[in-house]
Amino acid sequence: MRATVYHNKFDVRIDQVPDPQIKEPTDAIIRVTHACICGSDLWPYRGLDQYQEGWRLGHEFMGIVEEVGKEVKTVKKGDRVISPFTFSDGSCEFCHKGLYTSCIHGGFWGGANNDGGQAEAMRVPLADGTLVVVPPETSNDEKLLKSILPLTDVMGTGHHAAVAAGVRQGSTAAIVGDGAVGLCGVLAAKRLGASRIIMLGHQPERLKIAKEFGATDIVEARGDDAVKQVQEMTKGGADATLECVGTKAAMDMAIDITRPGGGVGYVGAPHGSEQLNFSRLFLHNISMRGGIAPVRAYLPVLLKDVLAGKLDPAPVLNMTVDLEGYLLAMLLWISARPSR
Amino acid sequence: MRATVYHNKFDVRIDQVPDPQIKEPTDAIIRVTHACICGSDLWPYRGLDQYQEGWRLGHEFMGIVEEVGKEVKTVKKGDRVISPFTFSDGSCEFCHKGLYTSCIHGGFWGGANNDGGQAEAMRVPLADGTLVVVPPETSNDEKLLKSILPLTDVMGTGHHAAVAAGVRQGSTAAIVGDGAVGLCGVLAAKRLGASRIIMLGHQPERLKIAKEFGATDIVEARGDDAVKQVQEMTKGGADATLECVGTKAAMDMAIDITRPGGGVGYVGAPHGSEQLNFSRLFLHNISMRGGIAPVRAYLPVLLKDVLAGKLDPAPVLNMTVDLEGYLLAMLLWISARPSR
Repeated sequence: MRATVYHNKFDVRIDQVPDPQIKEPTDAIIRVTHACICGSDLWPYRGLDQYQEGWRLGHEFMGIVEEVGKEVKTVKKGDRVISPFTFSDGSCEFCHKGLYTSCIHGGFWGGANNDGGQAEAMRVPLADGTLVVVPPETSNDEKLLKSILPLTDVMGTGHHAAVAAGVRQGSTAAIVGDGAVGLCGVLAAKRLGASRIIMLGHQPERLKIAKEFGATDIVEARGDDAVKQVQEMTKGGADATLECVGTKAAMDMAIDITRPGGGVGYVGAPHGSEQLNFSRLFLHNISMRGGIAPVRAYLPVLLKDVLAGKLDPAPVLNMTVDLEGYLLAMLLWISARPSR
Repeated sequence: MRATVYHNKFDVRIDQVPDPQIKEPTDAIIRVTHACICGSDLWPYRGLDQYQEGWRLGHEFMGIVEEVGKEVKTVKKGDRVISPFTFSDGSCEFCHKGLYTSCIHGGFWGGANNDGGQAEAMRVPLADGTLVVVPPETSNDEKLLKSILPLTDVMGTGHHAAVAAGVRQGSTAAIVGDGAVGLCGVLAAKRLGASRIIMLGHQPERLKIAKEFGATDIVEARGDDAVKQVQEMTKGGADATLECVGTKAAMDMAIDITRPGGGVGYVGAPHGSEQLNFSRLFLHNISMRGGIAPVRAYLPVLLKDVLAGKLDPAPVLNMTVDLEGYLLAMLLWISARPSR
């Protein structure tokens, strides 16, 4: 079968690889029907994360179960399933707490040891603790499937940022970053009851989606000017700020625009954001919560809302390609976002 | 009257200064009966905080009201009062939220513009929003007054660390730092229901108090060895860690010994702790909460517990001197804690 494989910086190929096989009785084999390219795939592609030749890529996918190991109980051959961007046993202390990303037997898709989602098929370890069944009636509704697909990662991650930041009924929320996660953060903040939602970003087509998603204010300024604008319009800062980028500039801005006693919910994979403006955090008791999103915990409830027509993150997916179109899509994305 | 005055690094003197006078109708003048030296007084004394000649010192004090401005309603001449380590109007958005330390009209004791608590008397701005009346029957009970005095700062700060770390019934709490705040953190963790309380420290006489206060485990190792010990004894880290020092080493340790999904409550004034182990925070969704403690919010409830005999932080006060003994006490403290 075909799969994306990392060879070197700016050298990811669609290679022929062995078909996946059941190795453990808790495995499932799925035929991938949909997969996404994530903003975080750009880090290794650009050589900014340590990847090694031969590693698989892709962690956002849906598919049809082809085969299950003999201990698998909750999914069966023919089921349409969606996966979070990590796998987990569903039974350890951390999974029981909803923190599936810290599962003691879990792990990440791709890399040296696991299949990646950007492939025709893949082996899913710990299938019971990982996969969520999508009702079969969705399979003939490509539009609906596209609304479900972002629940693999970006919608759950935006939701995690909003929860971690402490968004609640009537909150003023600010979102740093107009990528897919930031846009999903707008949806999440609105869903959690924020009455004012301020989006900080620079891409016109993304800001248009932000408004459609419920952003009440758009701040296109950068750096100190953006901080000043948000501080003025909120008279002291946002109650809850969603940091959806992961760079130092984004984290600094998130801290600077948050109200005393408020919270920063951060979900951008840290790239240089380790040096925090700790003095402001300390002086104003601003909380820092977040991290890698335990998407598996949020999948069932968000899926229910999508199926009920109450939530639709599909607009964050702005291009559809097949595996052959993958490299073109990567290059187009990078050229459109030189600052990342 | 006499007051402590900063002149230079290692040069704090007991100077004659003008008697305090009512300047605003919201002021009170109090005669100081008790004041503490705080660990944070050591930073400027050692030249590690930017202090200027002539600045007053001291932010932990109790006293008797001598005079009040005409708008003061809640305290009157003759009242025994205790103050938190900041002053606050009690009526702004942040005070209403209990975040008195972010009061828009508030401020810190000492410095260039305000009196310090290490003095015979002082002017207290915003007396209604700041001072808490201590029942008059305590005035003849020096032992009880000594149990109340730590509520000005260290007990409320330890409590804030425990609250921010998320200590609850049955939690495993770890406390980094065996200074007065860390010891009060033990009391606070116990009071909030922690079932296991691990104290990390090195001073035998302080560790003895920690045990008396309710610490169930003592870790005297340093650095990686201490991390390893706590990780092993808790099988994965403490649910809630109280960072009560403020140095980079203490913050690193606090993060490293906290369980996935757990919380670090930090109250040590940051001195070099700006560079965090952000990868661990991110990967395991460990929250960072805390900051300068809004002690005013906690004073009434903690005072009630002290008066009821349910809480007694007095043992953290290990030396009693008069103003003349102040310099000796500072020097003894510094020489006893060379590593700070």
